[in-house]
Amino acid sequence: MSNRPALALIAIGDELLNGRTVNTNATWLGGVLQREGARLERVVTVGDDQDVIAAEIAAAGEHADLILCSGGLGPTDDDRTRHAVAAAAGVPLREDADTVAWLRRRFQRAGRAMPDSNRRQAAFPEGATILRNPIGSAPGFLVGAADPPIAAVPGVPAEFRRLFLDHVLPFLRAEWSDRLRPPPSLLLRTTGESESDLADRLERLEELSGTALASLPSTAGVDLHVVAADAAGLERAHRVLRAELGASVYGTDDVDLVEVVGDALRTRGWGLAVAESCTGGLLAQRITSFAGASDYFLGGIVAYGDEAKRTLAGVDGDLIARHGAVSAEVARALAAGVLARFGAQAAVAITGVAGPGGGSERKPVGTVFVAARTADADEVRALALPGDRAAIRERSAQAALDLLRRSL
Amino acid sequence: MSNRPALALIAIGDELLNGRTVNTNATWLGGVLQREGARLERVVTVGDDQDVIAAEIAAAGEHADLILCSGGLGPTDDDRTRHAVAAAAGVPLREDADTVAWLRRRFQRAGRAMPDSNRRQAAFPEGATILRNPIGSAPGFLVGAADPPIAAVPGVPAEFRRLFLDHVLPFLRAEWSDRLRPPPSLLLRTTGESESDLADRLERLEELSGTALASLPSTAGVDLHVVAADAAGLERAHRVLRAELGASVYGTDDVDLVEVVGDALRTRGWGLAVAESCTGGLLAQRITSFAGASDYFLGGIVAYGDEAKRTLAGVDGDLIARHGAVSAEVARALAAGVLARFGAQAAVAITGVAGPGGGSERKPVGTVFVAARTADADEVRALALPGDRAAIRERSAQAALDLLRRSL
Repeated sequence: MSNRPALALIAIGDELLNGRTVNTNATWLGGVLQREGARLERVVTVGDDQDVIAAEIAAAGEHADLILCSGGLGPTDDDRTRHAVAAAAGVPLREDADTVAWLRRRFQRAGRAMPDSNRRQAAFPEGATILRNPIGSAPGFLVGAADPPIAAVPGVPAEFRRLFLDHVLPFLRAEWSDRLRPPPSLLLRTTGESESDLADRLERLEELSGTALASLPSTAGVDLHVVAADAAGLERAHRVLRAELGASVYGTDDVDLVEVVGDALRTRGWGLAVAESCTGGLLAQRITSFAGASDYFLGGIVAYGDEAKRTLAGVDGDLIARHGAVSAEVARALAAGVLARFGAQAAVAITGVAGPGGGSERKPVGTVFVAARTADADEVRALALPGDRAAIRERSAQAALDLLRRSL
Repeated sequence: MSNRPALALIAIGDELLNGRTVNTNATWLGGVLQREGARLERVVTVGDDQDVIAAEIAAAGEHADLILCSGGLGPTDDDRTRHAVAAAAGVPLREDADTVAWLRRRFQRAGRAMPDSNRRQAAFPEGATILRNPIGSAPGFLVGAADPPIAAVPGVPAEFRRLFLDHVLPFLRAEWSDRLRPPPSLLLRTTGESESDLADRLERLEELSGTALASLPSTAGVDLHVVAADAAGLERAHRVLRAELGASVYGTDDVDLVEVVGDALRTRGWGLAVAESCTGGLLAQRITSFAGASDYFLGGIVAYGDEAKRTLAGVDGDLIARHGAVSAEVARALAAGVLARFGAQAAVAITGVAGPGGGSERKPVGTVFVAARTADADEVRALALPGDRAAIRERSAQAALDLLRRSL
C-alpha cells in the first residue's frame, strides 16, 4: 500500500467500551501522523485485561512500525498496561528509584503523603526509556528494543498529546526520517455554498486533473481537502480554486471564521457588538472562545424574549408586532440597536426559529434572519437552514459572521 | 470474565484514521450495550482495505458473539465492506433486485437518475438479511448463518444508530434473551466538590461495601457511577449516598444542571437573566441549547468590556475602578444590574480571568467570581479554577448555575 511508517494504536480502558468516554485521541493522532507523512494504520480498543492487551500487542506487531498503547497506567491494580507490555516484550517489570522519588516529591508539593499504591506507577519493563509526564502522575515509557518498538502513554487526552509530542514523535522522526514524506496538501475553507453546488462548479474545472479533492461538509461550511502530487501542483490547484470560488473561501487549514473577522476588525480598530435571539449566546461564546477577543469584542445582548428585544436592544415594539420577532426588519433593528448601545463600529444580529417547536407554515423551523451593520453597510439575509436545533444554531452563527466578513 | 453477550465492532474508513472524523459510534454503542446487559468487548478501526477487513472479521470471531461492521457501504469502488464480509463468510455477493428498485425510486423522488455506481449498494452476501435504511442510500445487512453472526451498517452516526436500533438490537435480544442481564446501576451527578474530597468522604462509608463506585470527573463536576448486585442494593446505596452528599447531588443519569435550575424556575414562574464577562455567552448558550428555555429564560448581557459592564449592565464605574472588573463586588453588581434591566426574578453573573493572558499575582488565571440574585438571596462565591481557557469557562458557567440552584 504505502511505504509511510505505520503506527498502530491500542487504546486501553473499560471506560472506552461502556459508553462513558469518547476516544478523541485516535482522531488527533491520525491528523498529526498524516501531517508528518506517517500514518495511523489501525486502532484497537480493549478493556483493562492483561492477556487481552498482550495478545493485541502481538497482533499489531505483524504490520506496524511502532505500537502505541494508551491508558491503563494508573495506580490501581486494574491498570495492567505495564504488565502486558513487559510480557509482550519478554522482559520483567523493574521499579525505578528516580520515579519513586519524583512521585514522592509530586505528592509532597500537593501537601500529601504518597499512597503506597502509587509506587505501581514507578514500575517499567526492563530496559524501557521512561517518558516523564509534566502534567500528571503517570509517566509513560518506550521499549525501543522491542520489534517493533512499543510506547505507552496515559489515556487522558492532555497527557496523551503532551507525551506523544514530547517523546514519541521525536523518536519516530529519528527512527524513520528517510520514510517520512508529508504529502503536499491544503485545506480550503468555504462557507455560504452547499456541498452539491460546489461539486457542480468544481467538476467543470479541467485544470484540477491530477489533484485529489475531498469535500468535508459541516455546520461551518464545506472544507475542501486538496492533495497534489507535488508542491507546484498544489500551488496551481490553490490558484484555480481561489479564482473559481472567490469570496466563498474564507481561509485555509485550521483558521476559524471568527479569527478572519477578528483580524479584519482589529486592522480597522473597530469594536464589535452582537445581538442574538435563537442562538442564545452561541455566537458571543464562539467569538470569546478565542483569547484576544477583547481586542475588538465589546459584548452582546442575548435578547431571547420580545421584551428584551425592546428594552435591551432598543427594537421598536411596533416593528415586532407588525413583522414578527423572526423577520428581516427585526434582525436589522437588533443590529442597529446593539451598534448604538455598545458604541460599536460593527454589529451583527440573529433572529430565527431553531426548533424543534415554534415553527409555522410561513416561518418553519430553520427560518433565520441575520443582519450586519457597519458605517458602510446595512445588510440582511434570509436563510432556510437544515438540521436539528444545535445545527441550525451553529449554521446561524456562521452565516452571521460570514455576512459581516463579506461586508467588511 | 463475564457471560454477558459480547459484541465486537469493526469500524471501517480511511477518514477515521487520518484525523478527519471522531468515532462517536463506539461510545454510543458501548452505552447501549451496557444498558441492555450485553457488552462491547473490543473496537478495531481500519481503513477501506478488503483483505484487512476480512482478517479483522476472522480475528474478532474468536471471542465475540456478534461482529458489527460499520462504514464502507457507499457506492464507490473504495467501499469494500460488503466484499470483505462475503469473503469472511465464504459466500458470493448477489445483487438484490428489490434493493435496485428501491434505490431507483429514491433517486427518482430527488428528481435524478440513479448513477450506475449506486447499483453496488444493492449487492449483498448470499443469504444475508437486508437491513432497510430509512434515512440514507446505504442499506445494511446481517449474515445470521455465519458463526458468529456478522452485521454491517453505515458509519454515518445517524444511520449507524438507526439501523442498529431498528435491526441489530432486536436480533441480539432474540438471540441472547437468556444471557442479557442489565446490571442495576445509577449515575449520581454532583458538583461543587473535588474528586479527591468526594473519595475521602465515600471511603469511610461502610454501608457501601458490595457496591462498585466509579467517579467520573468533568468540568460539570464529578459523576458517580454506582453498580450494585441487585435492585435492593442499588436502592440502599442511593439512599446512603444522598444522605452523605446532600446538596452536592443535583440529579441522576443524563440530567443537566440547566434542566434542574430551569425546572425550579418554571415551578416558581420566575424569569432568569444572566450577565457574563469571561464566559462570553457560554452560559446563555448552554441554557438556550435546551428547547423550552423560553419558558423562563429572558436573556442576558455579554459585558466583555468594562464600558459594557457600566452602560449595559448598570455597574457603577467607581466600583470597577475600586475593586477591579474581576471582583466579588462587580459580580454582585452585574447580577443586580441584569435582574433590574430584564425585569427578572432571578439572575446570575460571572466575571473572571479565563486566560491564558490577563492574570496577575493577586488574581491569577482561574480567578472567577460568580453571583446569584433573587428576591430572597444575594450570594457571591470566589473560585480558583483549574484547567485551560475552555475548561475555566465551562467550570465557571457550571458554578454560577450551581450557586443559583443552591439559593433556590
